[in-house]
Amino acid sequence: MVSVTRCFLLLCFLLLCFILISPSSSHPHPLDPLTPAELSAVRSIITSSPLNLSASLTFHYVGLDEPDKSSVLSWSSAYSYSSLPPRRAMAILRAESQTHELIVDIAGAAIVSHIVQPGTAYPMLTIEEETAAGLLPKSYAPFVESVRKRGLQLEDVLCTSYTRGWFGAVAAKGRRVVSVLCFVAGETANLYVRPLEGIKVVVDLDEMKILEYRDREVAPVPPAEGTEYRAAKQRPPFGPRGKRVVVEQPEVRWANWDFHLAFDTRAGAIISLASIKDTGGSRRSVLYRGFVSELFVPYMDPSEDWYFKTYMDVGEYGFGLLASPLQPMIDCPPNADFIDGYYATESGEPLVISNVFCVFERYAGDPSWRHTETMIPGETINESREEVTLVVRMVSTLGNYDYMIDWEFRTTGTIRVSVNNLLTGVLAIKATTHNHTDQINTDEHGELVAPNSIAVYHDHFVTFHLDLDVAGPANSFVKANLKIVHTNSGNPTPRKSYWTVVRETARTEADARVRFGDSTAELLVVNTGVRTSLGNAAGYRLVGSSAAGTSLLSDDDYPQIRAAYTKKQLWVTPYHKEEKWAAGFYADQSRGDDNLAKWSMRNRSVENTDIVLWYTLGFHHIPSQEDFPVMPMLTGSFELRPFNFFERSPVINTEPFYKGLWPQ
Amino acid sequence: MVSVTRCFLLLCFLLLCFILISPSSSHPHPLDPLTPAELSAVRSIITSSPLNLSASLTFHYVGLDEPDKSSVLSWSSAYSYSSLPPRRAMAILRAESQTHELIVDIAGAAIVSHIVQPGTAYPMLTIEEETAAGLLPKSYAPFVESVRKRGLQLEDVLCTSYTRGWFGAVAAKGRRVVSVLCFVAGETANLYVRPLEGIKVVVDLDEMKILEYRDREVAPVPPAEGTEYRAAKQRPPFGPRGKRVVVEQPEVRWANWDFHLAFDTRAGAIISLASIKDTGGSRRSVLYRGFVSELFVPYMDPSEDWYFKTYMDVGEYGFGLLASPLQPMIDCPPNADFIDGYYATESGEPLVISNVFCVFERYAGDPSWRHTETMIPGETINESREEVTLVVRMVSTLGNYDYMIDWEFRTTGTIRVSVNNLLTGVLAIKATTHNHTDQINTDEHGELVAPNSIAVYHDHFVTFHLDLDVAGPANSFVKANLKIVHTNSGNPTPRKSYWTVVRETARTEADARVRFGDSTAELLVVNTGVRTSLGNAAGYRLVGSSAAGTSLLSDDDYPQIRAAYTKKQLWVTPYHKEEKWAAGFYADQSRGDDNLAKWSMRNRSVENTDIVLWYTLGFHHIPSQEDFPVMPMLTGSFELRPFNFFERSPVINTEPFYKGLWPQ
Repeated sequence: MVSVTRCFLLLCFLLLCFILISPSSSHPHPLDPLTPAELSAVRSIITSSPLNLSASLTFHYVGLDEPDKSSVLSWSSAYSYSSLPPRRAMAILRAESQTHELIVDIAGAAIVSHIVQPGTAYPMLTIEEETAAGLLPKSYAPFVESVRKRGLQLEDVLCTSYTRGWFGAVAAKGRRVVSVLCFVAGETANLYVRPLEGIKVVVDLDEMKILEYRDREVAPVPPAEGTEYRAAKQRPPFGPRGKRVVVEQPEVRWANWDFHLAFDTRAGAIISLASIKDTGGSRRSVLYRGFVSELFVPYMDPSEDWYFKTYMDVGEYGFGLLASPLQPMIDCPPNADFIDGYYATESGEPLVISNVFCVFERYAGDPSWRHTETMIPGETINESREEVTLVVRMVSTLGNYDYMIDWEFRTTGTIRVSVNNLLTGVLAIKATTHNHTDQINTDEHGELVAPNSIAVYHDHFVTFHLDLDVAGPANSFVKANLKIVHTNSGNPTPRKSYWTVVRETARTEADARVRFGDSTAELLVVNTGVRTSLGNAAGYRLVGSSAAGTSLLSDDDYPQIRAAYTKKQLWVTPYHKEEKWAAGFYADQSRGDDNLAKWSMRNRSVENTDIVLWYTLGFHHIPSQEDFPVMPMLTGSFELRPFNFFERSPVINTEPFYKGLWPQ
Repeated sequence: MVSVTRCFLLLCFLLLCFILISPSSSHPHPLDPLTPAELSAVRSIITSSPLNLSASLTFHYVGLDEPDKSSVLSWSSAYSYSSLPPRRAMAILRAESQTHELIVDIAGAAIVSHIVQPGTAYPMLTIEEETAAGLLPKSYAPFVESVRKRGLQLEDVLCTSYTRGWFGAVAAKGRRVVSVLCFVAGETANLYVRPLEGIKVVVDLDEMKILEYRDREVAPVPPAEGTEYRAAKQRPPFGPRGKRVVVEQPEVRWANWDFHLAFDTRAGAIISLASIKDTGGSRRSVLYRGFVSELFVPYMDPSEDWYFKTYMDVGEYGFGLLASPLQPMIDCPPNADFIDGYYATESGEPLVISNVFCVFERYAGDPSWRHTETMIPGETINESREEVTLVVRMVSTLGNYDYMIDWEFRTTGTIRVSVNNLLTGVLAIKATTHNHTDQINTDEHGELVAPNSIAVYHDHFVTFHLDLDVAGPANSFVKANLKIVHTNSGNPTPRKSYWTVVRETARTEADARVRFGDSTAELLVVNTGVRTSLGNAAGYRLVGSSAAGTSLLSDDDYPQIRAAYTKKQLWVTPYHKEEKWAAGFYADQSRGDDNLAKWSMRNRSVENTDIVLWYTLGFHHIPSQEDFPVMPMLTGSFELRPFNFFERSPVINTEPFYKGLWPQ
């Protein structure tokens, strides 16, 4: 009987499941990323301009120079497509060892602003220069000799660029330098676990030449055996598997949510203007903007070849630039739809990243809510609704690690970020002579995870920019503190204690820096100007993650100065258009003079104004053998959950999917 | 093109998806719950015994008296079905106001042990007495008058039993008492949000009579409007929905996992003898036993009618006894299979709870791991495997709240508990005259969530008994502490700090009490006698939940004395067969003399021995209007993740599902 019903339902899915989401809107939106035509136009405007830029001009970032929030909001409320704000681009260029910031009016074919950036930090690396720097050693005689000395084939050796951070006195004095680190492929595709240890190559990216070369010591190359991960290379006996399963999505319009999705070279996915229908049926803003602002990954080995590994992957490499094209049926379920992204190459030409996002409805077999009632005579009630959500996914592969960021929208009003998966890929491996823990009697700064392979201790701090506009921009940040009350037992009841809630509204930025665990409080963003019929202020609650690590580095250590904001999980700032990147606009070799912690020191008012939350998911990673040769997903997520935003549960009157199909 | 492939795949699923799991093994297992025939036999052995038990005998618990762990383990390693240990039952009875503990040899038809329990705490309530107590007021003249005075229809008023805890001097002096609380249904099925406030009814369960009655004040009954949750009662305009989706499971054997699942009246689902194939192909134990040991729910209103609401739902009501039959297609996805459970009624007769568990394969569209590799010339690698897991689900409806416990087994070796959903159902509501927050100027001990409706502050503490046997019973508990090391900048590198790992093995129970957040450490259970080829001790890591609340009640408050263990999230004890219930074997009106915190005070050795972890998921609940009239799922989960248990990732050589179907 069940089988018959199942068959019937599956047939229904077969009929329904090919109606696709069409995620890009048919009308232009002021936050749309630059199109290929616009990217080409920007390039042509710049290269044909009378600006005295050299022939060696390189494009490090080209993206939308977003209109002011006020003009986006007024456009959004009017939806008057004719009054679209002018399309402008921001371009970050390098020419003759200088960084140029340009604002380009695309329709007007004019450069409206041009600044030569005076600081000591640098823009994102281009893929082209990373590749070129990685090729330098292979034609550099001392390196060729080093490879020969180790008995390796030059063609098996692959090198790429690693940023070097900033470490005070040893700073590279006005040079854009990277370390070039090399690995051995050939027998395996899993090159990261086979480092060419003991060789130091420092490259000047502007001059594209090797500045420093040192072959310090010959270390063993960890064995290739058992490191291969490609399916086609696996041999029986095969590992465990369950058969799998399809998630299908039959509908085009998505429930009560509305939002804009854009690709950006630096941030990757940008969610803008997310709004939801309230229980009265009118649309209300929730999130003006959400994206990954920075990703700080410090390694914990102070030695020569490792101490500088304190990456800021978003600002140095680009979370969007290094996005992986998503594979249908592999990275995303069969019902997913895919969206392309475009970026400007080093020469300013538009290039596509196909399938940079996938968007799909998820049903994982769980209810959204349920209740069984047995107290009503003659009636047994089992009520439940399916949890069907919409997921926007992207994957950014920053060298060895793959980060998967999911934005999940629930009909309950909750936005959940990075639901079941966040971090996978290959560990950074340091070669060692050891192949048994009994041989280890000093601090190796990591764990032995394979023969000759130390996986070095490290952290991941993923910082989200969350510009909440809860029922409008004028918001406040409230800590709902749980306060213990001690009572006189016996007066009137024997109970001796309970907790109650004392709400504390943050007046300035200093009030709103939160280290989770320091106190017991729920964290809310409220709009005191918009109240429910019961008088409760419309709000959203930040539900933190179990991945709640903060940085353990000392405050005066160079990487910590640069990423000072990683000592607290949450910061709140007043909205400021320029404050988008937690580690500063120029992150490469930055010195901590332009970052979230610095801005917050101004201690501006954050009460009843447009505020931005900065929330960091933090992992301390002690590797184990299971993480080798490719680690299974580590999970971590946080939620933005409505709190008196609706008059009541917005899904209480949602019909069950099986109504009409399934006997009531 | 995509559509064609999708169709093809869906057709494949249609062919494959009706092969069902058969979750109950065909051979008897020493941990199988009692069958209906065994339950009947136990009843008949007891009622026909020469024991001088009264005619008013009631059965409060009948379950397997499990064989000693050593005999289960030796049976398990031999799998010699003929040598099954003798089947024994434990029965907890009440007769003439005394509690009797009996052990019954089923095959021998003999009572092998009989103890009259001398303590002051009581066994779980029976459903029959809860129902009977709930009916008492309706034929009690003062109550009938109270109802009339409020202008209500007696048939709309529904009452049930609420345990009263223990509060020192006011203890009920040897009586099994409950409060009977009443609600108004009629216009809505959602009776919990319409309490009949101001009436106190205390019932003696053994005598089944009203001991105390007081009509303190006439409070408004909160309105029924907008509280209905049944689908059939909803009217347009309907709420948001996305179309949904099927998870199908085509295979019978489940990957690398093997475990036993049993139903118990008190615990609900019990997972036993969970083992997994290691990368060498041999089977290794992970978890000897896992179940929900207690669920402590204290409310935070010290007033007359609320102060005692400090429930221990497992020990007082039975997490299994109040399990809800799971509805196909509603509580579990279409590919789920269902298992029944049996319990003994008050009269000792067996009764079925149909569909008490569902078991299904879950594919939610996520990868288990992935990596993109672009550094290898001429080759772009995108490798990924689907995450397909096995979920065992049950729902326990304890009055207004519905708890959904999922045990999810992953091929990576991870066990995840209560993945995406834990808590739903209806809030406990206190009636108030208020219908706007502006009218409130005292502490109402809750939030106004609907007109005349205060949802009272409260906590949920779900405590799991986790008897890990990592590669065998001899285990140790290790804190891998992250210790900061300060270095001399410039010697040899400019780095000033890093963290390293200092492992600390707990010697006694006191070393192993953990309050999360007090320090930065990863928590491991290791077997130092079983090492990988690299010398790492086989281990499992406990990855805690974001639901990490601990109790805020004062240590000397009565409910806190009873649930003293809720001040720490984690305790470790040496395995002791009797120590299964965190709040004590008899939880009703218990006084804290038999609970986890008490046992732990003996400070026994926990090193290199058989140990049990007790982990508590804790929520502090400040309700909001969205939680009304039925709250959307609150999530909370924890993981047991392998840590050097395998030689390498156990899923690296798993074939992708689409191999052969999907172009490589």
